[in-house]
Amino acid sequence: MTAPGIGMLQPKSLELLAEKARLLRIHSMRMTTAAGSGHPTSCLSAAELMAATFFYAMRFDRSNPNSLASDRFVLSKGHAAPILYAALAEAGVFPVSRLMTLRQFSSELEGHPTPRIPGVDAATGSLGQGLSVGSGLALGARLQKSTARVYVLMGDGEMAEGNVWEAAAFAASQQLDNLVAMADVNSLGQSGRTMYGHDSDVYRRKFESEGWTAEVIDGHDLAAVVGALDRAQASRGKPYAIVARTEKGHGISFLADKEGWHGKPLSREELAKALAEIGPAPDVPKDDGRSYARKSLPVPPDFPEPAAPAYTLGQSVASREAYGTGLRKLAAANPKVYGLDGDVKNSTFSETLQKAFPDRLIEGYIAEQNLVSVAVGMAAQGLVPFVATFACFLSRAYDQVRMAAISRSNINLCGSHCGVSIGEDGPSQMGLEDLAMFRAIPGATVLYPADAVSAERLTAEAARRGGICYLRTSRPKTPVLYGAEEKFPVPGFKVLRQSAGDRVTVIGAGVTLYEALNACDQLKTKGINARVIDLYCVKPLDVAALAENIRATGGRLITVEDHYAEGGLGEAVIAGLCEAGAAPTAVRRLAVDRVPHSGQSQELLDLFGISARRIVAAVEQVL
Amino acid sequence: MTAPGIGMLQPKSLELLAEKARLLRIHSMRMTTAAGSGHPTSCLSAAELMAATFFYAMRFDRSNPNSLASDRFVLSKGHAAPILYAALAEAGVFPVSRLMTLRQFSSELEGHPTPRIPGVDAATGSLGQGLSVGSGLALGARLQKSTARVYVLMGDGEMAEGNVWEAAAFAASQQLDNLVAMADVNSLGQSGRTMYGHDSDVYRRKFESEGWTAEVIDGHDLAAVVGALDRAQASRGKPYAIVARTEKGHGISFLADKEGWHGKPLSREELAKALAEIGPAPDVPKDDGRSYARKSLPVPPDFPEPAAPAYTLGQSVASREAYGTGLRKLAAANPKVYGLDGDVKNSTFSETLQKAFPDRLIEGYIAEQNLVSVAVGMAAQGLVPFVATFACFLSRAYDQVRMAAISRSNINLCGSHCGVSIGEDGPSQMGLEDLAMFRAIPGATVLYPADAVSAERLTAEAARRGGICYLRTSRPKTPVLYGAEEKFPVPGFKVLRQSAGDRVTVIGAGVTLYEALNACDQLKTKGINARVIDLYCVKPLDVAALAENIRATGGRLITVEDHYAEGGLGEAVIAGLCEAGAAPTAVRRLAVDRVPHSGQSQELLDLFGISARRIVAAVEQVL
Repeated sequence: MTAPGIGMLQPKSLELLAEKARLLRIHSMRMTTAAGSGHPTSCLSAAELMAATFFYAMRFDRSNPNSLASDRFVLSKGHAAPILYAALAEAGVFPVSRLMTLRQFSSELEGHPTPRIPGVDAATGSLGQGLSVGSGLALGARLQKSTARVYVLMGDGEMAEGNVWEAAAFAASQQLDNLVAMADVNSLGQSGRTMYGHDSDVYRRKFESEGWTAEVIDGHDLAAVVGALDRAQASRGKPYAIVARTEKGHGISFLADKEGWHGKPLSREELAKALAEIGPAPDVPKDDGRSYARKSLPVPPDFPEPAAPAYTLGQSVASREAYGTGLRKLAAANPKVYGLDGDVKNSTFSETLQKAFPDRLIEGYIAEQNLVSVAVGMAAQGLVPFVATFACFLSRAYDQVRMAAISRSNINLCGSHCGVSIGEDGPSQMGLEDLAMFRAIPGATVLYPADAVSAERLTAEAARRGGICYLRTSRPKTPVLYGAEEKFPVPGFKVLRQSAGDRVTVIGAGVTLYEALNACDQLKTKGINARVIDLYCVKPLDVAALAENIRATGGRLITVEDHYAEGGLGEAVIAGLCEAGAAPTAVRRLAVDRVPHSGQSQELLDLFGISARRIVAAVEQVL
Repeated sequence: MTAPGIGMLQPKSLELLAEKARLLRIHSMRMTTAAGSGHPTSCLSAAELMAATFFYAMRFDRSNPNSLASDRFVLSKGHAAPILYAALAEAGVFPVSRLMTLRQFSSELEGHPTPRIPGVDAATGSLGQGLSVGSGLALGARLQKSTARVYVLMGDGEMAEGNVWEAAAFAASQQLDNLVAMADVNSLGQSGRTMYGHDSDVYRRKFESEGWTAEVIDGHDLAAVVGALDRAQASRGKPYAIVARTEKGHGISFLADKEGWHGKPLSREELAKALAEIGPAPDVPKDDGRSYARKSLPVPPDFPEPAAPAYTLGQSVASREAYGTGLRKLAAANPKVYGLDGDVKNSTFSETLQKAFPDRLIEGYIAEQNLVSVAVGMAAQGLVPFVATFACFLSRAYDQVRMAAISRSNINLCGSHCGVSIGEDGPSQMGLEDLAMFRAIPGATVLYPADAVSAERLTAEAARRGGICYLRTSRPKTPVLYGAEEKFPVPGFKVLRQSAGDRVTVIGAGVTLYEALNACDQLKTKGINARVIDLYCVKPLDVAALAENIRATGGRLITVEDHYAEGGLGEAVIAGLCEAGAAPTAVRRLAVDRVPHSGQSQELLDLFGISARRIVAAVEQVL
């Protein structure tokens, strides 16, 4: 597959590449001095790697550098952003004049790369994630028959992050020979020498032990860099690592390999001295104030509504099982849908997808950080990834989810086995902070289906929505509550028990919804009518509609959740109501209040305060 | 250093070890069948490794197996808990009769290990963390002149976790030759073959590439296991890895190397068949119902109050800088205090500690997961660790923090550079979900000092407190507000502006406190008196005292935080007030409401809605 527009500036000689490297150095220093902050020396070590990658190896559409046909570049060492912006400008993606707006309030050229910038697919700056994103881009290209390649530039400091080695193992297991990793081994971290200093061979051995082809080169020798890039392009069946020995601050006598210069721009005087060393600098044309931010980011594709859920009312089905069925139906309806698994597919029911479409479930083994960032890369290629693991293990990838949000990525995450209701396996396996985690992700959608019908419908809803979508599923089998034609708008909730004489509203979700229904029945025998709400969508909230219900029940409210109280659905509802001027007059938050332990599901629900019995007691307190 | 009571059962021959392995297999199968859940086949692969480790290699005080002088064992593959419990029982730590209570509601023998059990130092079950905990235990032993060794048993599935390789690199960099890693390469994960199957050599190469001595053995050949343990004990200057090729379900014909048996107990009939294969089984004495849970867990040591803060009112000092000074004073007052750094010590000011006491700051490089779990290991040796990095990068270690809480660990974490107030570096470097993260950790203390005096005092407070203590510090310099003698009780807050005519309460913390004070001054010129509260302790909350203030100001409340709204201090306060029957009558939560971008601190505070101007506007809305 070759796209129109591909084929860009290719200097005829190493001399021309050297001139590009020189310009990239000049831009990087000027930009950071103008901004008054930034990381010029981290740019200088990478100048030859960047020049050869952008002006020799890569083929991309400068008017659409994020297209499927374009080679892609991921700057994993995101603090070297200035040299990336300089390379994009020199490549004609936006004008060189724009560079001097670096880090300004009004500029898309932020301190660290974000996808607001054409040619950037994912935000970087939290280190050690770029190789996973690059693996996702490379996999996304291959799955969609693109022959484009992906280049990832890493720093040596960030290679202490385990995420890097999860990615390396994954890329090798997927035989991503369209992926090239470059390590800029400048030996200096932020606060001192890295663990291995200039022992570049350590990194070669690590990559080789992960199943890569790897070589060590002098990263300032352009002929060596070009040769390595040639060999990388010729690699078959294995990803390729170029371990480049470099100097931080290379090219400027008073910066080269000097400690104490990390994250420091040059003063005006130092800049003048540096420019005098490096040769004639071009004039910088004046920025015209026009933004070159990307006009559009990937959006989830349209696809037909999957087949309706096929359950009977009262049938006992775990929501996690319905997730698997829903995912299979989605994959049948849309060829861009993929699942990602962390060796728990028989627990999360991702295996339902795999059984129907063996090639549509990517096995990532037990490496959640990598799974999430691979999904970000796949989404940037227009795919619709669903990562599923135990809810608690998504906490392993919280930084990656955070960066996915900054990346404006469209990824779906399913966390199964939430709460104490999983029972005997004990607290290490119980997701009890996942609602807090995902609620605090800006723009995220947080879905929490109680039954199989809502789980299937909300899985499809997640696929359609942009941003980070989180679906919380439960381990126990629960009765089907809804008919096949029921719709679950977002935001929204369902009122399952209601009468004119309701004196309290009980809001539950997942397993606690059934406890609430049970409590409602018990209360009825005592002559107390309770309204019961299924809050299947925890974020966003339809606060106005919730407020009507709370008002209608005398302002009395019980929230009950299989989650810790902090950041959970109770806090969400209560704070929302108060801010809307509909503060409840009496409220109890029932939630797990301490580290739980092993036991049977039902006895744990009771001990940790979220059973029907506890709801009844709370209702009696507020009346 | 040798403790009394050390020296335990040492079979004279391999035959006796083989008998121990046979008993461990029998116990593991019986326990899980009795429980009706659990992972017997994951135990069977490790029987020889466990028998040789516990009954040949280890020296420990069976009445105090968590003592500094005792060799320690970490079961990183926590789902093999039954065989650990069986080994502890056979070693005499608690009676064999207790084993049959596995996974029961009333038993300390949970589905996965927790420190409720004597001989367990940290909860495991979230995979890939044990080697970091073991590194912390080994480091903690060495720092306190103990010659005890640490053994860590890992599964091959979990070695896909990057955390494992962070730990491996760290242990080598620290030359932890008192640390032995054993890899139980049974080749079967939960849902299928692992990435490398039985290619054990891959793991050897990986360990060697990290700087370890490593060897591959047959993990069911007791002579080979014993020989490897001998060589491990003789290692000098390097940690030692024993990569053991094993079979999942080994020893039972219908389980050995069979897929589909992960996490499944045997039925009564299958158990009888298995026991018939494995030879005569001892009777199981009846459990007497007595708990063998540990009576006490490590508590932070007492130490004298550090020297008082030495600032003048109005002096401009960043809270992160005061953290460094506070940590240095703490270290002077208490030899057990250590800092841990992820190559940001010049930003977090951990370097203030290092400059005064070079050996008291442990450099962990850019590997936050490992840092946190190393701290857990050090705390289990009675040390007082302080891990500091950017607040946002602690999200990288959220699973490890979660497990630290389940471990009842006493660790202190400092997150610097919180919020949009860091400015130009952009969103990847801004901690905006850390309050939500740490609030959702059960029993955690969440501290958020605004000025240097409170930052120093609260650093000392963290050291004294048990559990997870989180200290949130800021990048910008801010004026000192408090005198040197001011105390900061936990829970607690300070009322900084107050009059009888106050019509609204504004609660801020960190940089937003200064915005609140500024807003208060502006409001005064408009004839509006506002009460201003410094909520330096976000968790726990003194809700009753807060409620008094809100009531005194007509129930009107503004909360303002450099954090996302979800799970932050606003939600905490509002939900707390409502549940206490003191719902605010009018409230605005000012918080960062979307992904921010680069800019200057003050312009970002305003754009994202948390500046003095925005507070004034919010106050005018609620009046």
